[in-house]
Amino acid sequence: MDASEMILVSVDDHLVEPADLFADRLPARFVEQAPKVVRNEAGADVWVFNDTVVPNIGLNAVAGRPKEEYGIEPTAFDEMRPGCFDVHERIKDMNAGGVLASMNFPSFPGFAARVFAAADDKDLALAVLQAYNDWHIDEWCGAYPGRFIPVGLPVLWDPELSAKEVRRLAAKGCHSLTFTENPAMLKYPSFHEDHWDPLWRALSDTGTVMSVHLGSSGRLAVTAPNAPVEVMITLQPMNICSAAADLLWSRLIKNFPEVRIALSEGGTGWIPYFLERLDRTYEMHHLWTGQDFGAKLPSEVFRERFLTCFISDPVGIKLRYDIGLDNIAWECDYPHSDSTWPNSAEALEEVMMGVPDEEVNKITFENACRWYSFDPFAHRKREAATVGALRAEAAGHDVSIRSLDHGRVKHPQGVSVMDVVRKATA
Amino acid sequence: MDASEMILVSVDDHLVEPADLFADRLPARFVEQAPKVVRNEAGADVWVFNDTVVPNIGLNAVAGRPKEEYGIEPTAFDEMRPGCFDVHERIKDMNAGGVLASMNFPSFPGFAARVFAAADDKDLALAVLQAYNDWHIDEWCGAYPGRFIPVGLPVLWDPELSAKEVRRLAAKGCHSLTFTENPAMLKYPSFHEDHWDPLWRALSDTGTVMSVHLGSSGRLAVTAPNAPVEVMITLQPMNICSAAADLLWSRLIKNFPEVRIALSEGGTGWIPYFLERLDRTYEMHHLWTGQDFGAKLPSEVFRERFLTCFISDPVGIKLRYDIGLDNIAWECDYPHSDSTWPNSAEALEEVMMGVPDEEVNKITFENACRWYSFDPFAHRKREAATVGALRAEAAGHDVSIRSLDHGRVKHPQGVSVMDVVRKATA
Repeated sequence: MDASEMILVSVDDHLVEPADLFADRLPARFVEQAPKVVRNEAGADVWVFNDTVVPNIGLNAVAGRPKEEYGIEPTAFDEMRPGCFDVHERIKDMNAGGVLASMNFPSFPGFAARVFAAADDKDLALAVLQAYNDWHIDEWCGAYPGRFIPVGLPVLWDPELSAKEVRRLAAKGCHSLTFTENPAMLKYPSFHEDHWDPLWRALSDTGTVMSVHLGSSGRLAVTAPNAPVEVMITLQPMNICSAAADLLWSRLIKNFPEVRIALSEGGTGWIPYFLERLDRTYEMHHLWTGQDFGAKLPSEVFRERFLTCFISDPVGIKLRYDIGLDNIAWECDYPHSDSTWPNSAEALEEVMMGVPDEEVNKITFENACRWYSFDPFAHRKREAATVGALRAEAAGHDVSIRSLDHGRVKHPQGVSVMDVVRKATA
Repeated sequence: MDASEMILVSVDDHLVEPADLFADRLPARFVEQAPKVVRNEAGADVWVFNDTVVPNIGLNAVAGRPKEEYGIEPTAFDEMRPGCFDVHERIKDMNAGGVLASMNFPSFPGFAARVFAAADDKDLALAVLQAYNDWHIDEWCGAYPGRFIPVGLPVLWDPELSAKEVRRLAAKGCHSLTFTENPAMLKYPSFHEDHWDPLWRALSDTGTVMSVHLGSSGRLAVTAPNAPVEVMITLQPMNICSAAADLLWSRLIKNFPEVRIALSEGGTGWIPYFLERLDRTYEMHHLWTGQDFGAKLPSEVFRERFLTCFISDPVGIKLRYDIGLDNIAWECDYPHSDSTWPNSAEALEEVMMGVPDEEVNKITFENACRWYSFDPFAHRKREAATVGALRAEAAGHDVSIRSLDHGRVKHPQGVSVMDVVRKATA
């Protein structure tokens, strides 16, 4: 399919929270303690909440910048492309990239809102979390109906409250919950305990997808502190593989047959091997372990319950029948360093050379829309939703690669994993 | 290719050390402290050395037994097929399975001999380690020339001594060293420090392959203690993926261009995705990190330096050109629970349906022989080396699945990761 004819719905992008997010959204008694943006001594803008300082890491907001300027230093708002934090600029960038719709994961709260969960005052934490969810749905996504798939933050410290929040958000049209890939790593009960049942029931009742993003266990894929940063970057999708195995064999899958899961930013090329490994594990061991999926193999269960996605993954496209044509979605990953923006459509055209149009459509938007109960065409005619049509609307919007280097950040060479951790917590 | 025409050289099998391994092999002053087999109260045979008790885990010696009898309990010699620990019986089993030659990794010392390295008396540790290596090369492999690819244990606590041992073993014809997939996990310097340079130099000088077996970091792939054991079994090959990334970006690769590495029991189906990920990591980040492989991409470097292997991996065979036809070897994994023995040839015939004969030969034996400088045909004519010829020699040897249940072991249902750890250390 020609790039300009594609329709692109991305199941994984990111927003950088604007500094005024909580303004007028909290009861008076919590205003003083609300998360705030502070410019630190080094010139970076960091979020501060409950004695936790969360920087925006440079690599997570590099859209449109030259690769030489990528880096791990905490960054400032004026060192980012405005599309990172300003929804009107974001829409212009989406149009220029030909992206019809997008799901935007949070940045400073962490993918499972563990920064909020860490607050001692749980009333404050809940107020902040609900303010965030309302801002995300009403203000960010609400500004451009049909352009964003809303995603809610969980109440990590209380499954009953989390269930209630899922039901509240579903009533507002939100059918995606971002959740940790491994609660046990965050010191909560694992996926193998009944602790989470109320939340799973709410997901099941409301048709809300559990979106587990790589990195959401709060644990980096680190082999050794002095390993080059490339080791960590190469391995990051591995945590998602762990989460996929952990979830597939969990009681969530067995006891809540309606709940579906998305493996966000997990890539697709490893899935066929993983499915083979699941089935072989079952075949070799179920007679002594007593594992039982009824008449199904684990790979069949995976295809019923898990959505996968990719940024640019030739192996995954080649193996699309082994993954499952209905289980693959596309993601843009704007504004992170892995993103193909603004040339995603061209990257997709190249990787999907020879793929029949109906399969391209499944992968670039149909699977995403079905999975997340999202209908962009309620707001925009299909003819006006293509890459070509959106780019025509964006005419004149500058997407050329350009420097945002203010001379503050030193871009180092020979970076180790330890450097990343040190900078991130500086 | 018809199963009976194949030639099978396995790059990964396992031996269970016989109880008399150290008899007459240690200086008098160390005899008292040598590792010994003790039958414990529960009826299992365990190795005892330096206050460490190492059981033989049931799952690691289940060849020929019904799957219902698989389990995690420590086992006894009379609950194992004799081919596990008796080289004459092993050869009969190899013949019956049509396996020409095999590399046998250690069991109780750990894949990188960390049980020996833990001894306070390093003279004792070195004497025990060298006794083991001599036994392995002279007695086990030596009993049937051309049937075993010898593999040496490293002196983990001293790179200079380890280098010396590598040179000593190379002079005896041993060109494989089993090493940990991550020394940092074992509290030694990581692959990114110059600490190991003397060892790497010895590997380089002697053409010895570093064979890193999954599980050799001493860390299991555990998501949560109460996860079903299937989660761990599914994920075990992931540690190897970590090791592959850790090594690929390490100074070993850059500074010792002759050293080659084998990823033992790591599977192959994930490799193409991994190579894609390596190259993308390089392309997106080398301008700010300064990574440099000369004019090469990381995937090219991988193909020059890494051997991969599989037991039964349809996805890997399908993607063999994306992996590299010269980078794939086969393994039997006898007597572990993942093994295809005694029907490996039939399993290979099925998975390699339609693969040209010259490609089958590379995968089933040529790559293994080239990689490990091993020439089985110095000892046996090629016509006598096929699956069909070897099976004819084994006529009458019983390989039917049969119970070895002595009523001692209770085979549980619903096993968690914690159960495995508890049993293994009982």
